[in-house]
Amino acid sequence: MTKQELILNDERYVPLHDHGFVGLIDTMGSDEEICEAARVSYGTGTKSVSDDRNLLRYLMRHWHTSPFEMAEAKFHLKLPIFVMRQLVRHRTANLNEYSARYSVLSDEFYIPEPELLAAQSQTNKQGRDGEIAEYDKQAIITLMEDSCAGSYSDYRVLLGEENEDGLMSPLYTGLSRELARIVVPVANYTECYWKCDLHNLFHFLRLRMDSHAQKEIRDFATTMYELVKSKFPMSCEAFEDYRFYAKTLSRMDLLALTDMLAGTFVPDPVFYGMSKREYSEFVDSFKPNEDHSRNRRES
Amino acid sequence: MTKQELILNDERYVPLHDHGFVGLIDTMGSDEEICEAARVSYGTGTKSVSDDRNLLRYLMRHWHTSPFEMAEAKFHLKLPIFVMRQLVRHRTANLNEYSARYSVLSDEFYIPEPELLAAQSQTNKQGRDGEIAEYDKQAIITLMEDSCAGSYSDYRVLLGEENEDGLMSPLYTGLSRELARIVVPVANYTECYWKCDLHNLFHFLRLRMDSHAQKEIRDFATTMYELVKSKFPMSCEAFEDYRFYAKTLSRMDLLALTDMLAGTFVPDPVFYGMSKREYSEFVDSFKPNEDHSRNRRES
Amino acid sequence: MTKQELILNDERYVPLHDHGFVGLIDTMGSDEEICEAARVSYGTGTKSVSDDRNLLRYLMRHWHTSPFEMAEAKFHLKLPIFVMRQLVRHRTANLNEYSARYSVLSDEFYIPEPELLAAQSQTNKQGRDGEIAEYDKQAIITLMEDSCAGSYSDYRVLLGEENEDGLMSPLYTGLSRELARIVVPVANYTECYWKCDLHNLFHFLRLRMDSHAQKEIRDFATTMYELVKSKFPMSCEAFEDYRFYAKTLSRMDLLALTDMLAGTFVPDPVFYGMSKREYSEFVDSFKPNEDHSRNRRES
Amino acid sequence: MTKQELILNDERYVPLHDHGFVGLIDTMGSDEEICEAARVSYGTGTKSVSDDRNLLRYLMRHWHTSPFEMAEAKFHLKLPIFVMRQLVRHRTANLNEYSARYSVLSDEFYIPEPELLAAQSQTNKQGRDGEIAEYDKQAIITLMEDSCAGSYSDYRVLLGEENEDGLMSPLYTGLSRELARIVVPVANYTECYWKCDLHNLFHFLRLRMDSHAQKEIRDFATTMYELVKSKFPMSCEAFEDYRFYAKTLSRMDLLALTDMLAGTFVPDPVFYGMSKREYSEFVDSFKPNEDHSRNRRES
Repeated sequence: MTKQELILNDERYVPLHDHGFVGLIDTMGSDEEICEAARVSYGTGTKSVSDDRNLLRYLMRHWHTSPFEMAEAKFHLKLPIFVMRQLVRHRTANLNEYSARYSVLSDEFYIPEPELLAAQSQTNKQGRDGEIAEYDKQAIITLMEDSCAGSYSDYRVLLGEENEDGLMSPLYTGLSRELARIVVPVANYTECYWKCDLHNLFHFLRLRMDSHAQKEIRDFATTMYELVKSKFPMSCEAFEDYRFYAKTLSRMDLLALTDMLAGTFVPDPVFYGMSKREYSEFVDSFKPNEDHSRNRRES
Repeated sequence: MTKQELILNDERYVPLHDHGFVGLIDTMGSDEEICEAARVSYGTGTKSVSDDRNLLRYLMRHWHTSPFEMAEAKFHLKLPIFVMRQLVRHRTANLNEYSARYSVLSDEFYIPEPELLAAQSQTNKQGRDGEIAEYDKQAIITLMEDSCAGSYSDYRVLLGEENEDGLMSPLYTGLSRELARIVVPVANYTECYWKCDLHNLFHFLRLRMDSHAQKEIRDFATTMYELVKSKFPMSCEAFEDYRFYAKTLSRMDLLALTDMLAGTFVPDPVFYGMSKREYSEFVDSFKPNEDHSRNRRES
Repeated sequence: MTKQELILNDERYVPLHDHGFVGLIDTMGSDEEICEAARVSYGTGTKSVSDDRNLLRYLMRHWHTSPFEMAEAKFHLKLPIFVMRQLVRHRTANLNEYSARYSVLSDEFYIPEPELLAAQSQTNKQGRDGEIAEYDKQAIITLMEDSCAGSYSDYRVLLGEENEDGLMSPLYTGLSRELARIVVPVANYTECYWKCDLHNLFHFLRLRMDSHAQKEIRDFATTMYELVKSKFPMSCEAFEDYRFYAKTLSRMDLLALTDMLAGTFVPDPVFYGMSKREYSEFVDSFKPNEDHSRNRRES
Repeated sequence: MTKQELILNDERYVPLHDHGFVGLIDTMGSDEEICEAARVSYGTGTKSVSDDRNLLRYLMRHWHTSPFEMAEAKFHLKLPIFVMRQLVRHRTANLNEYSARYSVLSDEFYIPEPELLAAQSQTNKQGRDGEIAEYDKQAIITLMEDSCAGSYSDYRVLLGEENEDGLMSPLYTGLSRELARIVVPVANYTECYWKCDLHNLFHFLRLRMDSHAQKEIRDFATTMYELVKSKFPMSCEAFEDYRFYAKTLSRMDLLALTDMLAGTFVPDPVFYGMSKREYSEFVDSFKPNEDHSRNRRES
């Protein structure tokens, strides 16, 4: 079996996209041990009244974040370079990545599934939302595949592994890896170990599971979260209730909301000091027909 | 059994000083798993030549520090506030401490053993080294004990737990804990959970096991190290060889040393651009009769 | 003039409490330079539509925090050790503190103003809220003053500066500073330089200007904020609107609020999966007669 | 003038490689202010004996690193993605980077100068050192240019900016930027603001100005250092003497050196517990004919 096959027979791993995977290879701590660390603050002067679930919810709700730092999750990830570039921005994690200076890069490139292809969003400058015709989707995929394959072939020529006729001299033995790799596109798959404490992992997840994150890193974040959830079920429930499905209302939102509840709402952004977009997002959040079912767990 | 007795029957814990302890309550990873993370950098392009010990030594020697961040150690510590104040300066650790706002402080205070009492050093402004007579040592200890006990008694009066005659009115029910505690001295014992990755733990240990660190935190650091060593023996050996017992020679030291080896040494700090103290430390390091036995392991 | 007088004639400094101060001694960047850094993300592909104020509000609202890290504020603080112990927990700041190993500690201790003295809160385990009689307030202050003065006198005896009759031998020259200081209470004033980027400063301020923070650190945080506000007025306005006066509603709050607006609210915490305290806090937030004036700026 | 021309007429900026630049656009603090922060530790108990240069050297030599954290340097950099990927690993810096989700990527790619082209090193798996013939160098450069240009042309087709005949349908309006960019190679130039405190900047510089760092990031680091040096001349001199041109000797090196000085050196790595490579590096460091002139400043 290849390394890839071995990994995909390992129950700690979940395959993702065309060549990627997410493996939760180790954790430290548990819901109970987070509580144990939190209780050191209370000492003998206070009865240990709270059961664990309530304590975890209390900690999450009141931003007592340090007990969640007592737990850790270590992942083994295979992901495209452009996703890696987003992941690495989270500076509280520990990281070991495949080195293109030491080693030859893989010939695997991320090519999106047709249903993920979308035109540039006109309202959200960093998003996608326009429809693309099937004919063009196929052309896009072919172009991406050919482009990546062409770049990879150039990389191999530079390395001296594939001496294309006439391009290099017969004496040529290959450029150093650290230089040859500069022609390789950011769709190329890389690999890393990535470890983070639970508080900072939740922070990462809140940002990267958000609908504004690029779909590809969102898929990685969501998969990481599902794996973590089985290890820290009560902490994750608290995270969902007080962070992920929570909503922060600005000073202006609160003014408007108070008026709404008192029946004195003024339908004018300027009155509340909001921008037009803030106002329309605010109104949308609380309009009666909105589907709030995601917030309702059991009914 | 009291909590203290329970803990001291737990083999993960080591008692320290009069009322303190160090417990290594959990670790994540192992020497092998540090190597596994390091090897993700090499991928398929490189044979896995190195055995684990050699790889760990290579990583330590060349400051490839990130694989050591893949391991964690979590401690439960009981220590005086003034030691806690030094510990907390290491900002890469995770920390939960006993809260004097929530809870009543312990009545335990660190009182040094007589052999630790020493006069202010004249050469090292942050150290101790003068001799103190036995008579004075006893007086010091008595004074420290009385001073701490007196402060603690004041604390209890402020809390309303010990209403000294005439001091407070019969109606007095006690000041809030967060205010009452301000009279308590920094010898008071506090408690914490403290977690750190292995790279940053080594950095902490190098600074705090050093002979310039205050003896009290040095005792804590040394005890922590002994516990960690049993979990990561090969990493710790590499730490000792390339960090703890290593010595950094400055540009000027290297000039002088080269001359020494060539037999052209000039016994003059100015010639090498050294301060007088640098020069004398340099000369001391390499004088023939120096005891280098600590550096010799088996021979 | 003493150093203290010099500082209090320096317009960058504000005196605080009995012996403390807050000085904003340097800043890096400005509202405009935060915007300049943010705009590097947009490059040539996007028109620079937003004016600075709108851009700063957009960044704050959408948690694009990195541009705020491009600004820094450096403070010189004089504060009691127990407040320092809370300050130092914010690990993203840079810090240089007065050393009790090198130097003799000041004889200044924080003694609260009578109006700050309050009994232990019964509902909030880390707070104060009970009334204390004037008679007792005076007794508390006297006890605190005497307790601190007594400890300081012991410290001086240990240092050999005040050789009380019969306590120490005539030969005694003083214990090292690092050991003598252990009898000094946490009301003692210390001094530090403390530097933080604006994003992390806002995080600190949100937590420490909060009504749940201990009054003493809240006073420091508020004073720091007032000084920073004059340097970064638009960033601070955005901080107030989207962080400090904002409110995060949990998944359960949002369910209840939607029902409230639709007129289908069920006055039962269990129905919404809230704890009793969450429920009552939620209901209090939105009750009609609540004073929301703090949220209303000009009207 | 284009933005690029404007920048290169700005004296804070230095051009680098074919399209890159390094600008030191702001600093906080100075050698004097680092000293001022350090002196807060000494307080009234200690005379301010040291002049600034001596104090800075003392701090650097004894790893009293926190005063250097009181200074900051903010850079504006234009650099290839593969260099950015190395830069971003230094997690203590603050960073704003050009966004390929918001904006169209530049058509500029790093193509090495012929003299930088070298074959894969056989001894150092992450380096280059073999000679390459002129004929091949020209072929490499042509191949790199064509490869990058081809990828960029594919990127433009994907964006819908250059609708190559027959490839896309006439209706095609362009894929979202965040997806189109995945075919762009890591030689592409990106841009960022990057800010770091002086202590962590020195740490970065020590690693990235080292001869083992990839030549391209070394050029960026060296240029950054030259700019910083003019702002913090005494701190930089201390950095060179006690860090950059310093050498750390392992426990085993120290044993061998002691024997060397005593004339009892045993020319055998096993005797000292060294690996073969350690041994040969050690011997090379101290062989008589070695050129140590880099370490000699004025004499």
